[in-house]
Parts: sequence; structure tokens; C-alpha cells
Amino acid sequence: MARVEAFSDGVLAIAITLLVLDIKVPVLAPGQTLMVGLLRQWPQILGYAASFVVIGIYWANHHYMFNLIHRCDHWLLLLNLGFLLCIGSLPFPTALVSAYLQNPGAQRTAVFVYQGAILACAVFFNAIWRYASTGHRLVDSRLDPEFIDAVTRRYNLGVLTYVVSVFAALWNVRAALAIDMLLVLVFFFPSPKPQFRPNSATET
Amino acid sequence: MARVEAFSDGVLAIAITLLVLDIKVPVLAPGQTLMVGLLRQWPQILGYAASFVVIGIYWANHHYMFNLIHRCDHWLLLLNLGFLLCIGSLPFPTALVSAYLQNPGAQRTAVFVYQGAILACAVFFNAIWRYASTGHRLVDSRLDPEFIDAVTRRYNLGVLTYVVSVFAALWNVRAALAIDMLLVLVFFFPSPKPQFRPNSATET
Amino acid sequence: MARVEAFSDGVLAIAITLLVLDIKVPVLAPGQTLMVGLLRQWPQILGYAASFVVIGIYWANHHYMFNLIHRCDHWLLLLNLGFLLCIGSLPFPTALVSAYLQNPGAQRTAVFVYQGAILACAVFFNAIWRYASTGHRLVDSRLDPEFIDAVTRRYNLGVLTYVVSVFAALWNVRAALAIDMLLVLVFFFPSPKPQFRPNSATET
Amino acid sequence: MARVEAFSDGVLAIAITLLVLDIKVPVLAPGQTLMVGLLRQWPQILGYAASFVVIGIYWANHHYMFNLIHRCDHWLLLLNLGFLLCIGSLPFPTALVSAYLQNPGAQRTAVFVYQGAILACAVFFNAIWRYASTGHRLVDSRLDPEFIDAVTRRYNLGVLTYVVSVFAALWNVRAALAIDMLLVLVFFFPSPKPQFRPNSATET
Repeated sequence: MARVEAFSDGVLAIAITLLVLDIKVPVLAPGQTLMVGLLRQWPQILGYAASFVVIGIYWANHHYMFNLIHRCDHWLLLLNLGFLLCIGSLPFPTALVSAYLQNPGAQRTAVFVYQGAILACAVFFNAIWRYASTGHRLVDSRLDPEFIDAVTRRYNLGVLTYVVSVFAALWNVRAALAIDMLLVLVFFFPSPKPQFRPNSATET
Repeated sequence: MARVEAFSDGVLAIAITLLVLDIKVPVLAPGQTLMVGLLRQWPQILGYAASFVVIGIYWANHHYMFNLIHRCDHWLLLLNLGFLLCIGSLPFPTALVSAYLQNPGAQRTAVFVYQGAILACAVFFNAIWRYASTGHRLVDSRLDPEFIDAVTRRYNLGVLTYVVSVFAALWNVRAALAIDMLLVLVFFFPSPKPQFRPNSATET
Repeated sequence: MARVEAFSDGVLAIAITLLVLDIKVPVLAPGQTLMVGLLRQWPQILGYAASFVVIGIYWANHHYMFNLIHRCDHWLLLLNLGFLLCIGSLPFPTALVSAYLQNPGAQRTAVFVYQGAILACAVFFNAIWRYASTGHRLVDSRLDPEFIDAVTRRYNLGVLTYVVSVFAALWNVRAALAIDMLLVLVFFFPSPKPQFRPNSATET
Repeated sequence: MARVEAFSDGVLAIAITLLVLDIKVPVLAPGQTLMVGLLRQWPQILGYAASFVVIGIYWANHHYMFNLIHRCDHWLLLLNLGFLLCIGSLPFPTALVSAYLQNPGAQRTAVFVYQGAILACAVFFNAIWRYASTGHRLVDSRLDPEFIDAVTRRYNLGVLTYVVSVFAALWNVRAALAIDMLLVLVFFFPSPKPQFRPNSATET
């Protein structure tokens, strides 16, 4: 387990830090001040902050989920790799949205791809949890089944919201980004505390 | 051992995450939509996914192999560095294939170099195992010799397949990539469970 | 705690190492020697070294602070993510200062943004400490309250100095950078040794 | 100690992996084959391999040295940061040598800077050891003083060789690189096994 967590932390930490490479030093037009040049870069700076928060929240939830998962097998490794493949790709759609957010003909496509990439992260994240928790396959055997169901519902909510926001992006870019912000707010609050079955034996 | 694994995980995690830097935000030709611009980038996106899977599978197998290896010496460190040198170079041949896959005059050279780089990874990976397992030099002393032979055959298969696909690349690019996919499929399934000698003493 | 520290170390290590990407190989004008080309790059080389020292000192202090913090909760995670968001952004203002330090019309803006980014790091760092230490919420319960106050004053000094240097940047770039260097000097010396309450019980 | 090693491993792993970003996909001149384009990139490929080996050997020696060092203080942290600052800068001189190795007017300057950067790594590495080992300040207290002297001499040899090769670079580029290769060969062989004082007490 330790090496799976260490490798995941590595990919998450690198993806989150590579985001900054998309903020370029502005080249000034004649007569333009640097302050104006920087203010016109707001989509890049916003993109950095937004994707940092998205990846950061995924990290916190990955951390939480892997505290509940006590065993590891080959398929869990593969699902986790799929999750990391999606997370590792996020610097690209972030750069895409930053570049085309102010282009009326392309902004919908850019936000659609961005939402799709985050949806793919959410689907793999959900799949890890479902695979690990079904029949207490890999999770702590003492966990209360009702608590497991509550966590499942919480992760389903994430997937469903991103499905909605992917399609919203085709209709209205601002609506899609507003839905995202709502979801960030939900996950901003702490995850529920693990609940154990009464009289459950101790597990190391 | 812990620091060797941590350093290897670091290099693997960084190489796998740097792959995304090769997917560039498309610059649109006049009248071209962003969706068309993105679809024309399929070699870059495919290259990201393919090399992510290749490095991910190497990571999973490195993880597996270093669970069997219980001791470390200077030559193991050097062989592992050679393996990491090859893994760390993969973003370059990946970018090369993405750039020249649709160029009829250059695609064979590009795929040849790509296959060659993966073959080099496989050769070093194989060398680590042979050095560590010969005469139970560094592996868990309780391992069944027949199990060790089975693992050796498995890793030989990897090297042989890449030798074939390197030469296949010179003849037909699609054949080479199809062989790769077959090998990924083989390693997609879990590695065999470690088998111990009967009555072997406990080793920490 | 271990994974929070590992993730923080990852982001700090990556941000500190990405700084080098801003030092570009000089393109020589006709008749210019490479030595002259390199010497004209002093703002890039200085920027690398200065930001490396700033991030390095933050790392050492983060290390020190998390030795005093013994428990972790959701809000500490979020404050730490905010701190990492600011640290992870530093390669951008560093590149900005390197690019515009010798441009009389833009240098103040560039240094203002740079100081502002470091101030944001200091504010989050301070917030982590205040959140964790108030009423011994998350810190080692044996710590002497007077020692906690001394640490708080030390971190307040950092925030105050950066507030001064942000505004100094608007007036005189050299003054702002001189204030920075003074602060680096203060934190160059070791942090005070933890002081415990007399007769405090042992805590693991 | 664990976090110092983890942070150092992080910076070393990132610096070693960033080296690949300097190998660019070749842009072909009309009528040029990709194979010729790649072969003309030999300075970039050689630079990648050479600096990978240099950083890899520093990693192995850092690993070895920190197994002998049992305690940590503020000044050790700072010296280690200085070492990491030099290691983290290596992608730049590597790119410089790759770019100017075939330029007769600039190759000496490029190799001089490259050797100087490696010399700076060696000086800080040496300083860490001297600070930690003098009077058994931070090293394992059971170490035989003669063994400590042998290690010191070994690290002095590294510094002296790089001083020679820095100046050799000004006279003849090939001679400087040949001296480097000799030193790599010396450190290719395992470091001496730690020797303990007779009847030394056990230390954890």
C-alpha cells in the first residue's frame, strides 16, 4: 500500500505543480504597461488556481479513501493507474481552456474537453471505490455497511455533477463553470468520519 | 531498500507526468474549429496514453519485483539507475513518434527509435532480475527456484517481444505497434503469486 | 500526517526544481562571445538562486512546524493546500522578475507581483500555524504556551516584513529586494528549540 | 532525517528527469531523413546520458553518506540545500554544452560552465561530509576515525579532480571531458564498507 500511495502522491504533486508552466511571461505590445499585460492573462491565472484546487481536492479525497482501503491487488493498481492517467493529463485541458476561454467560437469546445477530463478522473475515482468496497473486498473489514453506502453516494454525486456540467458546457460555458464551483464547495467540507460496525474486532 | 524504491518511484512518476507536456494547445488555421484542431492531434494524445500505460506497467512490475528482492548492493543500484535512465528518456521518443507518425518517409525511423527505447528498458529490467535472482543473491531466500525460473521466463518474453517489434518497425509500423499492444495485454494480467519452498524459514 | 508531509515535500521539491527551466540557453548575437551572452543572463541566474533560497527556507520551516504539529484535520489540509498553491506559483513571478528587472517601466510591477506572491505564501504559512496552535488544537500538547507565542511572533515578523516589501517595491525595487535579503538572513539562523511545559506527560 | 532524505531524493529525481526536456524533436531540412536528423542530435543525447550518470552517482553517494549520518541540525539542512541548489541547476549547463559543443568559438566556455557547476556540487557535498564528520558531530558515533578519514580523502579526490577539469576545459574540451569520465569510473566502483571502532556500543 505504501508504494501505491507514494507513487500516486508523486503523480498528483507533479501534475499540480506543472500547471504553473502554462502561465507565460507576457510579451508587451508597444505602449502597454506590464500591469495591463498581466491583467489580460487572467484566464491563465484563473486556470492555474482552478485546476490546482481540483487536483488538490482529489488528493485530499484519495488520501481519505486510501485510509479506508486496507489491502491492495493488481486490479486496484490498474484502476489507480487509470485515475492517475486522467489526473496527469489535466495540465493540457487547463491550457486549452486558458487559451480559448475568450474565443467565442471555441470556448464551448475547450470547456467541454476540460469538463470531460475531470469527469474521467471522477469515473476512475468512483471505480476504485466500488471495486474496493463491494463486499468489503479491500476496505477495512470493520467498516459499517451503511457508512460505505454513504461514501458511495457521495462519489456518485461527483460523477453525476460532472456529467451534467459536461453537457452544460455545450450550452453555456458560465453555467458549466458555476456547477463546478458548487461541487468544489461540497467537497470543500470535510468527508464524513468513518463509522465502524458495533463490536467489530480490531484490525491492524 | 526504501530509498531505492522512493527514488525509482520519483523518476517513474515524473517521467510519466512529463509526457503531458508534449500535447500542445492547437493553433487553429483560419476557419478551422477547435474540435477539428483537437482531432488532428490524435497522435499526441495517443502517444501520451500509450507511453503512460507502458511506464505504468513498468512501475507495477518494478513494485512487484522489488517485493521479491530483499537486499540491495552497489551493482543493483547501478543496474536500477540504467533502467531509470531509459525510462526517463521515454518522453523524447514519445514526442518523436507523435510528430512523425503521419509522415510516410519518417514514421519507420520514429517507431524504430521508440521501440528501441522500450527494449532498452526491458533489457535493464531483465538484468536487474537476473543479477538479483541468480543463486538467490539478493532475493527472498525462501523463494521456490521453480517460481524464480517462471519469473525469469516471463521477463525474457518481454525482451524477446520488443526485439521482434524493433525490427518489425523497419518493415511495418502498424505491425510493430500491434505487437506492443499484445504485450501490454499479457502484462495487463496479474503477475504470478510468489511461491515459497516447502518448510522455508521465516525471513523478515 | 506522513502523507501530508510527503505531498508537501513533493510540491516544494518540484517547484524548486522547475525554477531552472527559466534559465534559457542564450542565443548569441553576431560577434558576441558565449561568456558575454551568459553574463547578460544574470537576472535569470539570480532569480533562480533567490527563489531557490526562498523556497528552501520555506521547506526548512515547514519541516520545523510540522514537527510541532501532531494531529491533522480537514481544515489544516486545506490551509496547507493554499500554502502549496502559492509556493507552486512561484516559478511564474520569478520568470517575470527575471524578464523585466532591467526594464525601467516595468520592473516595479514585476517586483510588486513577486513580493505579493511571497507574501501570500507567508500569510498561508502563518494561518497554518495559528490554526494549529490556538488552544493547542493540533500541536504537541506538551508545548510551553510561551514558546508557542514566540513562534507566532516569529512568523508574524515574516508577514509584516513582506507587507512592507510589497509596498517598497512600488517605490524602489532595490529597497524591496534588500528587505527580502534581510529577512532571509533572519531565517538563515536556526529556529528556536521547542520548549516544553514543566512536568508535561510524554506524548507519542 | 527521513524528510531531509525524501526532499533530497525529490529534487535529485526531478532534476535527473527534467534533463530529457532538452532533447528536442528534430525539425528536418528538405530532403533530410529523420535518421540523419537524429544522428546530428548526438550532443543532446550524450548530454542527457552524461548528466544522468553524474546526478545518478551523486544520488548513490548521497544515499551512502546519509546512512553514515545519524543526526541532523540546521546547518546540515542549509548545506544540503546548497548542494541541491547546484544539482537542480544542472539541466541548464547540460543544455548549454549540448547547444555549443560543436561551436569552436564557444565550446570552451560551455564546458567550463558545466564543469564549474559540477565542481560546485562536489564542494557542497564535501562540505556536508566535513561538517557532519568532524569530531563525530552528526555521524554514527561508532565509526572508526580511520574510516572517516578514508571517506574524506575519497571526497577530496572528487573536488580536486573537478578543479583540474574546470581549468582543463579552458585549454582543451576533450581533455576535460576525459577527466570527468575517469572520475565517473572511480565512483562507478562501490564505496568502502563502513568500519566501526572495536567494542563500540550499539547505536540505533
